[in-house]
Amino acid sequence: MAADASAIHAEIVAIGAELLTPFKQDTNSLFLTEELNLLGVKVAFKDVVGDDRTHLTNVARVAVERSGIIIFMGGLGPTEDDLTRECVADALGIEVHPDPEIITELYKRFASRRIVMPENNARQAHVLDGAKVLANSRGTAPGQWLDTRFNGEPRYIMLLPGPPHELKPMFMEQCVPRLREALPEAHFARRVLKLAMLGESYVDSIAAPIYNKRTEVQTTILASAAEVQLHLTSSAASRQEAQCRVDSLADELDAAFGPSIFSTEGEPLEEIVGLYLGMRGMTVSVAESCTGGMIGERLTAVPGSSRWFMGGAIVYSNQMKVTLAGVSAKLIEQFGAVSDSVARALAEGIRARCGTHIGIGVTGIAGPAGGSAEKPVGLVYVAVADERGTEVMERQFLGDRQRVRLGASQQALDMVRRRLLA
Amino acid sequence: MAADASAIHAEIVAIGAELLTPFKQDTNSLFLTEELNLLGVKVAFKDVVGDDRTHLTNVARVAVERSGIIIFMGGLGPTEDDLTRECVADALGIEVHPDPEIITELYKRFASRRIVMPENNARQAHVLDGAKVLANSRGTAPGQWLDTRFNGEPRYIMLLPGPPHELKPMFMEQCVPRLREALPEAHFARRVLKLAMLGESYVDSIAAPIYNKRTEVQTTILASAAEVQLHLTSSAASRQEAQCRVDSLADELDAAFGPSIFSTEGEPLEEIVGLYLGMRGMTVSVAESCTGGMIGERLTAVPGSSRWFMGGAIVYSNQMKVTLAGVSAKLIEQFGAVSDSVARALAEGIRARCGTHIGIGVTGIAGPAGGSAEKPVGLVYVAVADERGTEVMERQFLGDRQRVRLGASQQALDMVRRRLLA
Repeated sequence: MAADASAIHAEIVAIGAELLTPFKQDTNSLFLTEELNLLGVKVAFKDVVGDDRTHLTNVARVAVERSGIIIFMGGLGPTEDDLTRECVADALGIEVHPDPEIITELYKRFASRRIVMPENNARQAHVLDGAKVLANSRGTAPGQWLDTRFNGEPRYIMLLPGPPHELKPMFMEQCVPRLREALPEAHFARRVLKLAMLGESYVDSIAAPIYNKRTEVQTTILASAAEVQLHLTSSAASRQEAQCRVDSLADELDAAFGPSIFSTEGEPLEEIVGLYLGMRGMTVSVAESCTGGMIGERLTAVPGSSRWFMGGAIVYSNQMKVTLAGVSAKLIEQFGAVSDSVARALAEGIRARCGTHIGIGVTGIAGPAGGSAEKPVGLVYVAVADERGTEVMERQFLGDRQRVRLGASQQALDMVRRRLLA
Repeated sequence: MAADASAIHAEIVAIGAELLTPFKQDTNSLFLTEELNLLGVKVAFKDVVGDDRTHLTNVARVAVERSGIIIFMGGLGPTEDDLTRECVADALGIEVHPDPEIITELYKRFASRRIVMPENNARQAHVLDGAKVLANSRGTAPGQWLDTRFNGEPRYIMLLPGPPHELKPMFMEQCVPRLREALPEAHFARRVLKLAMLGESYVDSIAAPIYNKRTEVQTTILASAAEVQLHLTSSAASRQEAQCRVDSLADELDAAFGPSIFSTEGEPLEEIVGLYLGMRGMTVSVAESCTGGMIGERLTAVPGSSRWFMGGAIVYSNQMKVTLAGVSAKLIEQFGAVSDSVARALAEGIRARCGTHIGIGVTGIAGPAGGSAEKPVGLVYVAVADERGTEVMERQFLGDRQRVRLGASQQALDMVRRRLLA
């Protein structure tokens, strides 16, 4: 019988000493959350715990008490530190048993390499009583799926390997179908709208009156450097109904913001710019000072970008602005390297030199040094030139060097996008 | 009386519905872990929970049972969703009381804006019985510090605001001194060694026999694209002793790996390259095909890079290789754009055109398309030219487009570094 999904929530447990250092963070849980949401399941708890028998058993016990779907990640290898199997069994009050098929497989693998199997490796063959073994096509440690009950309530328990390239296919191919069968039909749908060069509070002041009327859709606002994202999710009995709800709200928001929304399916700005350029059969080149290659790097991160991105110049020094982008040394002397005029000359110069339809020029003060009262850190000029003329924008960005540079690259790409829309 | 730090571990609890979505991750815990480690405290558990009274009280109860130092982050605002104060009190079996000073402060703030304070705001003045209020210099929600006992054992409990720019100064200025006083003298020291262009298992095969003999230092290996990091940490009664231990192991590893170690204090490769260039008064330029600006972007991410980075060309199309870097069209026709000869011509051409001491040339196939049997995806040629001549390396990188590009940029920077060492 299918469980009541509205009552069932998920808990994700990441296991490994390295995840408790300042250097490493679990990222699998973001992927798993997205996939669980699409099955209509919310994640209520996430835990990180090290390779410590007492601590891990404690976490497993707490999870089994409170959550219907529990995903344990990591700790399935052959070493003494790999305790997940034993600790989960302890928490459930069940035993593990050696699985003959896994043992045969392990012996075969070692024999083929003419090595005697180290004793420890037999640990990998320990399977929770009642569990199904999940084959690992990308690594050695198999996973496990256990469909059981605890205090009379259903428990769906998964033991998955930690490396993302092993965990993801195992979860998609062997856990999602089992969960879909176990849970009632309930589906999430999602849309991600993205806006460039607007503040979070401004976006919310326009969006909130619209999304607050649509309580059947959950709306989350996220802001990063020069980008605001509106995440719309809804759950319903059918995929179609959920999709219809988020699409309808997305359409309403799209109408309210107009061209400020650059993406309605979550695509990054550089991909949208590439899409528009490709559709129009147009090409672009860059002359980058303070961004130092970031715009080129972002555009060439898009597969197939060679169709519409030709290249350009990194004009960090004044001499390079002259040599590589054809800016006159006099102009730089007269107005300064960070000026409306030099940005314009960079865009027009690189467009002419590269023979592209569009040229981008960027110059600014990324900081932390180099600012003055007249030209403070964060001041950036961005120019876009095409056959119809050249547009220059002056912007004053806040934040550290990387934020200023990200903002400048975002401004440049957004200007190209709007130019292509017009 | 100071508690026994060896027996006390920390637990970090992040609170907020957005941290249970696929889009947002707690990052404060990495900062807190680093600072706690420096006080001699290990983090044993990390939890994420939403704004749900039952769930949050459950997490708080479990944490209070098992951990001596507990840091709760978030949920301290004025809304109905801000439940941290009440749930932690419930878990400890204590009450909250309104703090007259906070209330006065709130009334003042609203009065100065000529607004009647909404009822809800009084929640922010709720303080756990026995707790000290931690002033918030960057926001409105004050934090709390509670030094108490649970089942006869010491408990140091902190309630901190979620936004990093509020949490960090509050923790550093108001919690670290209190923890230092409460805990016995025990200090961590840390060194981070970084190696480029070597595999993780190769590095470990050399490093393990060395660090396994030094059990007083904990060594962790982390691998990312074209970089392996060795993190050495040690705790001792004095900062000096801990430092001495990690320094001694770092020296031994440094001797074993020689010039393969590019950084012994955690600096990124581009910063080391910039340091060497600056010391020698030398300059560099780039001609980037498959990396599309990434090397320039990395070099200009270093503050002050204008002293040694002049600029260069992004030569994505063949025509740009000719126009901007002076490569002969015949050479491209003869050997193909992805070839030893073209990489060499790019490095030498851009060096001549930019008048720099060193020129970098990169050409390759980043994928996913564009590969062939003869020249597969991931094939990259990297050239470095200076007055002594030109060196070219052929590399075959694995992985997706971004990994190939990162590997190529890392190879280029590492070749420049080794050239400057010689």
